Amino acid sequence: MIIVMQHGASAAQIAAAVSRVEGLGYKASLIKGEERTIIGVVGDDRPIDRSQFETLDGVEKTMPVLKPFKLASRDMHPMDTHVNLNHAPVGGPRIAVMAGPCSVEGRSQIIEVAHMVKEAGAVALRGGAFKPRTSPYSFQGLGEEGLRYLAEAREATGLPIVTEAMSVEQIPVVCEYADVIQIGARNMQNYDLLRAAGKANKPVLLKRGMMSTIEELLMSAEYVLAGGNAQVMLCERGIRTFEKYTRNTTDINAIPVLKQMTHLPVVLDPSHGTGKWEYVAAVARAGIAAGADGLIIEVHQNPTEAMSDGAQSLKPEKFAALVRECQAVAAAVGRG
Amino acid sequence: MIIVMQHGASAAQIAAAVSRVEGLGYKASLIKGEERTIIGVVGDDRPIDRSQFETLDGVEKTMPVLKPFKLASRDMHPMDTHVNLNHAPVGGPRIAVMAGPCSVEGRSQIIEVAHMVKEAGAVALRGGAFKPRTSPYSFQGLGEEGLRYLAEAREATGLPIVTEAMSVEQIPVVCEYADVIQIGARNMQNYDLLRAAGKANKPVLLKRGMMSTIEELLMSAEYVLAGGNAQVMLCERGIRTFEKYTRNTTDINAIPVLKQMTHLPVVLDPSHGTGKWEYVAAVARAGIAAGADGLIIEVHQNPTEAMSDGAQSLKPEKFAALVRECQAVAAAVGRG
Amino acid sequence: MIIVMQHGASAAQIAAAVSRVEGLGYKASLIKGEERTIIGVVGDDRPIDRSQFETLDGVEKTMPVLKPFKLASRDMHPMDTHVNLNHAPVGGPRIAVMAGPCSVEGRSQIIEVAHMVKEAGAVALRGGAFKPRTSPYSFQGLGEEGLRYLAEAREATGLPIVTEAMSVEQIPVVCEYADVIQIGARNMQNYDLLRAAGKANKPVLLKRGMMSTIEELLMSAEYVLAGGNAQVMLCERGIRTFEKYTRNTTDINAIPVLKQMTHLPVVLDPSHGTGKWEYVAAVARAGIAAGADGLIIEVHQNPTEAMSDGAQSLKPEKFAALVRECQAVAAAVGRG
Amino acid sequence: MIIVMQHGASAAQIAAAVSRVEGLGYKASLIKGEERTIIGVVGDDRPIDRSQFETLDGVEKTMPVLKPFKLASRDMHPMDTHVNLNHAPVGGPRIAVMAGPCSVEGRSQIIEVAHMVKEAGAVALRGGAFKPRTSPYSFQGLGEEGLRYLAEAREATGLPIVTEAMSVEQIPVVCEYADVIQIGARNMQNYDLLRAAGKANKPVLLKRGMMSTIEELLMSAEYVLAGGNAQVMLCERGIRTFEKYTRNTTDINAIPVLKQMTHLPVVLDPSHGTGKWEYVAAVARAGIAAGADGLIIEVHQNPTEAMSDGAQSLKPEKFAALVRECQAVAAAVGRG
Repeated sequence: MIIVMQHGASAAQIAAAVSRVEGLGYKASLIKGEERTIIGVVGDDRPIDRSQFETLDGVEKTMPVLKPFKLASRDMHPMDTHVNLNHAPVGGPRIAVMAGPCSVEGRSQIIEVAHMVKEAGAVALRGGAFKPRTSPYSFQGLGEEGLRYLAEAREATGLPIVTEAMSVEQIPVVCEYADVIQIGARNMQNYDLLRAAGKANKPVLLKRGMMSTIEELLMSAEYVLAGGNAQVMLCERGIRTFEKYTRNTTDINAIPVLKQMTHLPVVLDPSHGTGKWEYVAAVARAGIAAGADGLIIEVHQNPTEAMSDGAQSLKPEKFAALVRECQAVAAAVGRG
Repeated sequence: MIIVMQHGASAAQIAAAVSRVEGLGYKASLIKGEERTIIGVVGDDRPIDRSQFETLDGVEKTMPVLKPFKLASRDMHPMDTHVNLNHAPVGGPRIAVMAGPCSVEGRSQIIEVAHMVKEAGAVALRGGAFKPRTSPYSFQGLGEEGLRYLAEAREATGLPIVTEAMSVEQIPVVCEYADVIQIGARNMQNYDLLRAAGKANKPVLLKRGMMSTIEELLMSAEYVLAGGNAQVMLCERGIRTFEKYTRNTTDINAIPVLKQMTHLPVVLDPSHGTGKWEYVAAVARAGIAAGADGLIIEVHQNPTEAMSDGAQSLKPEKFAALVRECQAVAAAVGRG
Repeated sequence: MIIVMQHGASAAQIAAAVSRVEGLGYKASLIKGEERTIIGVVGDDRPIDRSQFETLDGVEKTMPVLKPFKLASRDMHPMDTHVNLNHAPVGGPRIAVMAGPCSVEGRSQIIEVAHMVKEAGAVALRGGAFKPRTSPYSFQGLGEEGLRYLAEAREATGLPIVTEAMSVEQIPVVCEYADVIQIGARNMQNYDLLRAAGKANKPVLLKRGMMSTIEELLMSAEYVLAGGNAQVMLCERGIRTFEKYTRNTTDINAIPVLKQMTHLPVVLDPSHGTGKWEYVAAVARAGIAAGADGLIIEVHQNPTEAMSDGAQSLKPEKFAALVRECQAVAAAVGRG
Repeated sequence: MIIVMQHGASAAQIAAAVSRVEGLGYKASLIKGEERTIIGVVGDDRPIDRSQFETLDGVEKTMPVLKPFKLASRDMHPMDTHVNLNHAPVGGPRIAVMAGPCSVEGRSQIIEVAHMVKEAGAVALRGGAFKPRTSPYSFQGLGEEGLRYLAEAREATGLPIVTEAMSVEQIPVVCEYADVIQIGARNMQNYDLLRAAGKANKPVLLKRGMMSTIEELLMSAEYVLAGGNAQVMLCERGIRTFEKYTRNTTDINAIPVLKQMTHLPVVLDPSHGTGKWEYVAAVARAGIAAGADGLIIEVHQNPTEAMSDGAQSLKPEKFAALVRECQAVAAAVGRG
């Protein structure tokens, strides 16, 4: 249940409502919005009697969580949220393309590829320093050294940095060096990590789990939003199905569904969505045509030598062609 | 295994090769192409010694069926196949949009909607006379009466007719009234039906089964092609996954994958792919951006009153907007 | 909707009810049970006003098809149905094991294996004469010749024959030679075939489609039952999932779910359910422990030489061990 | 790649091998077994030249990681591993049944249910203190307070405690109070958590992700084993498929597959595998028949009042019947 306080409710009224919530054995999750304060009532799965809150001073209304997500919902927040990626807001009329290698492999590699993707039209640089790998015997990323190289690449090019934090402990160091905290697909339901991201002062790129429904993605976004961080981008990156010709199945339906259900920007990752470089451009164009606000694309100078995900990485010149094609499609659907 | 006869191989040489095939206990499937004849060698799953055929007169080469489909493969037939839909070839530079109701419900209904979709830009009329329904207690279609109404709608508008044949016995009557035989998703592996379609003199629109792989779709096309019918369109119509917010999951990856693997035209059905009318246009645009050659869309004058599939049917004016949007996207990707 | 006539309703009353149904534009599907007659009202998907039937003479009640299947439901028919497989009823206290090769490959092969599986404890012989194959270039079965060999194997051993009919046209010849008509997984929603099986005078073994829900399986059974054939066995044979280590994923949950929802006997096919012979016995035991009424198992004298499905076929001695193990489990769960 | 040192290799020889590994830019992961030391060579995905290690003193052989898991594999460790659950080893001849509520809800609740499940035959008590919940507004567990109640229940009954750790930070407190660290399905690929569990001195119950393959489960176990913790139990708890009648689809095939591939004990969770209490006993019996070494079952005094997972929780008397049934099946398959 959500308690929506009146516009201009006093601190004392809010405190009284919180006190009532806690007195009844629930926890209160306070979300101070620009216009009004909302109190999330966190309890168990049994129904709550809403009337016991509606008579309190300063309470405008209570709402059952019919849709299990609330802060992420367009019902509560009809206007599109813009996530601030330096001078390129994501979620506005212009398409935002983020690009870079799967892993940061070295200083010169990442700086070189940063220049290349910037020239091709990217507005942010992606690159993994902490890598979640299925095998403990695979390359696990350069760690903080990788983050430093990313920061150098930003200095050299001006591109903001998107990089993954795999655990609560990595959040501070990722925030120190990077501009956007990526939560990976395997961690979409790592709730402690989501809570920590909710307290961070950097935007979050939340990737859909390969086994997660659209609604679960929104519920995970809700954890971040409920923690106080309103700058969340959602990323469709392909789901796991019986079809094995491609690495994953890009759920293109999720783009218009998410745009209808939520005010948060929606980004497509066709590199993971297909797993094969030769299909990335076609699916990137499809994403833009379907209404995505941005793309995140794996690009490597020399994919056959990449330490990870080489099969789905584009060479820089192919990436440049992809950006041109997507710009044409964006114009055709009325976006810059 | 496939035996590729030389260009200009004589009838006697072909007969000798067939005779050798049969003498060894296999069946021969003869496919007379424009340039050369190919003999499919149909046996059990044990390996065949190819050398015993390669020394025959008139044989150019033999090929193991490494890719299990052969006639459908671009390796054997690099040029795009154009399927002739009256004056609108499918598979060429122009996008072909087929549209109409899920079911033919009556004479005036189908003629009216035919005019509407034609005006909006459709090049063919779809409509079911024989309906495969999960429940024996649901409306099963008007049958031959429905086919007659479809034929009247063609006379009234000039639009060729696409309609489903559910069984071998329905093929002749469908061919009598309609222009394209649709094989539905539930029948994609109804091999007797595929063989019968392979002997028909009308183009075939073959829909992917909701849990069939891309390769299985091509294998089913191979049945039709091996029967002698080269006019086959493939249709992606969504697959079944764990995600239940949409009726199916449109496998957008399948569009570029199929365009790479086969020379046959590829059509997208975003109505079944999403199952909800409000997402149909976005996914239709995505399909065109990804490289589809055509679309097949459910349109109904009054979706809330439709006898079947109302939730995924577009009103005519929304369909007209969809066509305009898809034309803009088609132009952006270099198609008419 | 279903109209349940009173016990002892007269032929005239039934005719009057049918006439009313047809007069309102619906079709009537008459099912004469042992105790009472039921009229299935087949229309479109729009709601039917039931009151217009309830006042007719001889009508006991009408029932909306809330569960979309009705004749297959335990609500309508609480007692277990026994399917008569010669002297071994399926669905009673004793477990029924059917076994044999994927394909009939020759006369002596099938007679030999029939003796072997009988000796090991099988109560029926399975074997395919018409084979649905993904590839048109694979062995398609011996056809009627195979049926004759099956009939000879029955004469030699007394075992009733289970074999697949792939199309409406094959039903008569299958009924001529065999004792049980198998409907294969790929044909579970081939509605014309289901209707034809509903008119046949032999029991039906209906396999669940690899892409079909439990409810859809029951709906397909409903087609056969509504056609007048009450002797239907349901067969779980594995569904298609993301897990590819096994050929399919045996849906063991479906066993207790089906036993709760329907009165029809439930058979498990662990050969297709796993696709690898080394896991067949474990999953067969699991099926019996979960409440299955029978098993259908692929057995071949020499699996490595089998024309199809060799990887999942058991050698006769392994099959004999499986039967012994399953008998022990059956006894542990209170069955013979 | 894995370097297997000779039995009796000296510390200096091991150090020299590690030094060579690191000198070539890889990381060395040292696993000291009872018989010999193994060095996991952790690098990127590019092939490693094994010959440069095989000539070192004390090296017995190197092995490419063909199967991507190694320590978990039966090839390396043919004998069954027994996980020590107080006086009830899991993985030996006797079936181990763990049971208890989804969540610890209070002191008296957990102590009462502990007595009940012990009396019914359980050898360990399960109960969640830290709960991973899809919604931030759902009950999140009692935290450390819940752990204290669990410890009290152990004192009262002697049953060892199985409870989930959701994050690296919770591992110490879970180890302080509990006997087995559960890693939940949503965290199966939370690699930092797996590494931390690998350094803990308590056995680990690792649940399969709801859309993770069998091989990925073994890879995640490999993280724990490579960290130095050999006491790992694997838990099949149902996967996510298109079938929605049950909450998940129990992958019964996984039981014999895992028993063949790995020496680690395999436990089945039919409560999550089905999601409905009425099917739990049937699937539990199936698991034992298929070869599972244990079960983990949700039991609640009053399921309709449970704070979470009430629909899949058994009442104590139904749980007692389940244990009796499973004991009969265990005896039938030759286990105590």
